[in-house]
Amino acid sequence: MAGNRPKKSADPVTQPALADFKVGVDNVIFSVDTAQNRLLALLVMRQEEPFLGQWCLPGTLVRQGESLEDAAYRILAEKIRVKNLYLEQLYTFGEPGRDPRESPDSYGVRYLSVSYFALVRFEDAELIANGVSGIAWYPLEQAPQLAFDHNQILKYGYQRLRNKLEYSPVAFEVLPDVFTLNDLYQLYTTVLGENFSDYSNFRSRLLKLGFLHDTGIKVSRGAGRPASLYRFDANAFTPFKDKPLVFI
Amino acid sequence: MAGNRPKKSADPVTQPALADFKVGVDNVIFSVDTAQNRLLALLVMRQEEPFLGQWCLPGTLVRQGESLEDAAYRILAEKIRVKNLYLEQLYTFGEPGRDPRESPDSYGVRYLSVSYFALVRFEDAELIANGVSGIAWYPLEQAPQLAFDHNQILKYGYQRLRNKLEYSPVAFEVLPDVFTLNDLYQLYTTVLGENFSDYSNFRSRLLKLGFLHDTGIKVSRGAGRPASLYRFDANAFTPFKDKPLVFI
Repeated sequence: MAGNRPKKSADPVTQPALADFKVGVDNVIFSVDTAQNRLLALLVMRQEEPFLGQWCLPGTLVRQGESLEDAAYRILAEKIRVKNLYLEQLYTFGEPGRDPRESPDSYGVRYLSVSYFALVRFEDAELIANGVSGIAWYPLEQAPQLAFDHNQILKYGYQRLRNKLEYSPVAFEVLPDVFTLNDLYQLYTTVLGENFSDYSNFRSRLLKLGFLHDTGIKVSRGAGRPASLYRFDANAFTPFKDKPLVFI
Repeated sequence: MAGNRPKKSADPVTQPALADFKVGVDNVIFSVDTAQNRLLALLVMRQEEPFLGQWCLPGTLVRQGESLEDAAYRILAEKIRVKNLYLEQLYTFGEPGRDPRESPDSYGVRYLSVSYFALVRFEDAELIANGVSGIAWYPLEQAPQLAFDHNQILKYGYQRLRNKLEYSPVAFEVLPDVFTLNDLYQLYTTVLGENFSDYSNFRSRLLKLGFLHDTGIKVSRGAGRPASLYRFDANAFTPFKDKPLVFI
């Protein structure tokens, strides 16, 4: 074996250099203010460069020994108090150059973002402003220019929210325990826009699914006739949990 | 300002150390052998440590300047020739310890996997065996113990495939241009299992959707009556593209 060249660990010709990454998690947290019919996204103001003073999604970089999910829950625990927060993974953004910290003088370290998604009940969520320079439930349609590619991540999260309303009973997690069909319609309209369905089609579709239990109680709101209060019947839904189903 | 301590860039108490990552992409590529009613997954045999000689998903580590998607397409171009390969992102796996290369003597570098998914037409796909020690279309139910957490990734990909059959017209991308309703039923059964629906419900459901165009041509297969050949009518489907819809 004498005469062999010593093996290089990274031959620039046959083994292109691998990228080194820091990994961030960014959370798209939605809520619906049902009293005002507003779809809200949780934003925080950046307190350091890059993008100092700009709004962004609440996120952090993953620490040694920490899982992606743990990092996502850690940063949220600093920003918001809420019951039953359940994060699901949304998408991973890793284009070269998506973070200005990927400068040549950073030795080529790249910044990847794994995004997470949750929908929380507005009344149960309490923002924590300790030590932050800004935190807000921003109406989605008034969201400003965000740091990094966070507008793109937010848009992706909004698409996921729409899909979840269409294909899952997520609406009942943010409504009060009892609600009128009009409350439910308003929630869908707030997220999906005015034209997703007219009220009478929506009403008959939802009642036909068989998951809404009429409590027998009626409420009067405004000038209209008293409206029935319904409850989501989780037991009736159970057999359909893993079946393909459309809610609207 | 005299007397202030110089700022440290990473104070071990207030600033826990960030994890350093290499990022891999792993591809879950499914195909359906409609002649044999087998659901197949593309596997390759590892040619280096760790897990030398074990089967795994075709993947690679992301290089400097390379996007995640480009890395995923790059490794597939070395393994398979296929028309219209379209990868979609599946999920990101990043638990500490998911890769044995995360040993203490690797300076704590972690290995994250961003997985991608595709369903390809069996007849159009040609495996490339150049310079690999093994490559195979493995029947999913006979998949062996895979390297890393790839069984988990494969399982996640299978769930995505089921969802896509239920909620999208992906089946028509892998069937021939014209097919009988029984061909279509066999495809669904191959992926979803025997009990997802009986044939007559499936038949009436699919015809009711209005996307199947009867070509007027009939074929005889086996002992049964001649069966009509259908074509997927992409134009009829277009208005429903962004609407919530269930195919079965």
